[in-house]
Amino acid sequence: MERPPFHSWLRPIPLSADEERREIAISLRYRPEFSHHPIESIFHGGVLAALVDLAGHAAVAVWHGPPTPTISLQIDYLRPVVGDDIEARGILRRLGRSISRADVEITAGGKLVALGRGTYSTLEK
Amino acid sequence: MERPPFHSWLRPIPLSADEERREIAISLRYRPEFSHHPIESIFHGGVLAALVDLAGHAAVAVWHGPPTPTISLQIDYLRPVVGDDIEARGILRRLGRSISRADVEITAGGKLVALGRGTYSTLEK
Amino acid sequence: MERPPFHSWLRPIPLSADEERREIAISLRYRPEFSHHPIESIFHGGVLAALVDLAGHAAVAVWHGPPTPTISLQIDYLRPVVGDDIEARGILRRLGRSISRADVEITAGGKLVALGRGTYSTLEK
Amino acid sequence: MERPPFHSWLRPIPLSADEERREIAISLRYRPEFSHHPIESIFHGGVLAALVDLAGHAAVAVWHGPPTPTISLQIDYLRPVVGDDIEARGILRRLGRSISRADVEITAGGKLVALGRGTYSTLEK
Repeated sequence: MERPPFHSWLRPIPLSADEERREIAISLRYRPEFSHHPIESIFHGGVLAALVDLAGHAAVAVWHGPPTPTISLQIDYLRPVVGDDIEARGILRRLGRSISRADVEITAGGKLVALGRGTYSTLEK
Repeated sequence: MERPPFHSWLRPIPLSADEERREIAISLRYRPEFSHHPIESIFHGGVLAALVDLAGHAAVAVWHGPPTPTISLQIDYLRPVVGDDIEARGILRRLGRSISRADVEITAGGKLVALGRGTYSTLEK
Repeated sequence: MERPPFHSWLRPIPLSADEERREIAISLRYRPEFSHHPIESIFHGGVLAALVDLAGHAAVAVWHGPPTPTISLQIDYLRPVVGDDIEARGILRRLGRSISRADVEITAGGKLVALGRGTYSTLEK
Repeated sequence: MERPPFHSWLRPIPLSADEERREIAISLRYRPEFSHHPIESIFHGGVLAALVDLAGHAAVAVWHGPPTPTISLQIDYLRPVVGDDIEARGILRRLGRSISRADVEITAGGKLVALGRGTYSTLEK
């Protein structure tokens, strides 16, 4: 996950990959450039959207192998996400021959703050 | 649009705001840290998702006034987005008392490359 | 559009297909069994969701040919949709080799009441 | 759930409501007018979309009380859904002061066939 230049900027930290549940977890450490607000430490929705893409992608790519380009992405924001570390869980829901799906749950301080869902192409191998 | 620290990093360029069509346009100049690929200049899906959020938000905020927090976001990726400048058009589709909607169209070299749609809270004034 | 048994129940009326704009239009005449409300004539959200699927599907199938199974569907409800005829416009946004997209706009009395977007598989021919 | 005329046609069967998990379950018995296909017993995507709306709505309304109008709906189709009974589980993910969210999982013969997510207004009481 370190190689795309955008990841080098975002710096997601791989935490775990659970074979049986087909789940991966990554975390993101707050940095001021992630902020929505000039003074307060609130994650920008665009950063969270990017994290949803990464976590969903990882959940598919770990079990399918790359490339798995994103077809579409859905993000639901549940609460303002105040600074510090946040965690994204990517859950593979369907590994299909041409199309795969992953759910993403973002938590901050143990609280659910955003829900995501991604559709990825698994046509190529 | 310059004030959130995340915008200072992304550096979206405001292009226009059309009162009658209730549309705004912003552009984004390619930089290597936006890339999905270590060598080729391909915009990362996460950067495009962030741009959808910004453009949709701008289309709502210009006519409503901030704050207009994002409730949910949908991004459909149509084609790989190869480097250089891209343009995002945010189109206000419904300015409601509590909930507003904007469509976003991202083009690169005049070609439609991604479609977005955002739901924003306009409950507060 | 008459052949699936569900269509025989819904009874969508084909209105037009515009080659140049790659748009189709269908209408739906209100019937009491479409209603959300025991007394008032308000279209049920589930009926509108079904109409989005049909109109998006038609916009893809007319230019690609069937089958074009639905991959995913998004519906945004803008206003309560009070009885009488409603119209759905399906707009082909991208006809791809494996994946295609259509936008759907539902209007009632000339007013925009719902926005939809569908992703359809165009892998088979 | 019996009162809206559309429900009288669809005939969803309430199965359970789990207080602790904030989940409800409903089932739908196949009937020919639900079909996508003139001969085979395949649920039409529009019927599944309507079921997602109902199950998500029920998950919110049981804990909030009506009315909880649908703001937006997302349905991801994972597999063709062949006739017989299907089950929809509505899971309340966030009960907010103005906006609430529910996930919906549709299974057929124990297999996950569709994923849904709904946003509902909980502004009024």
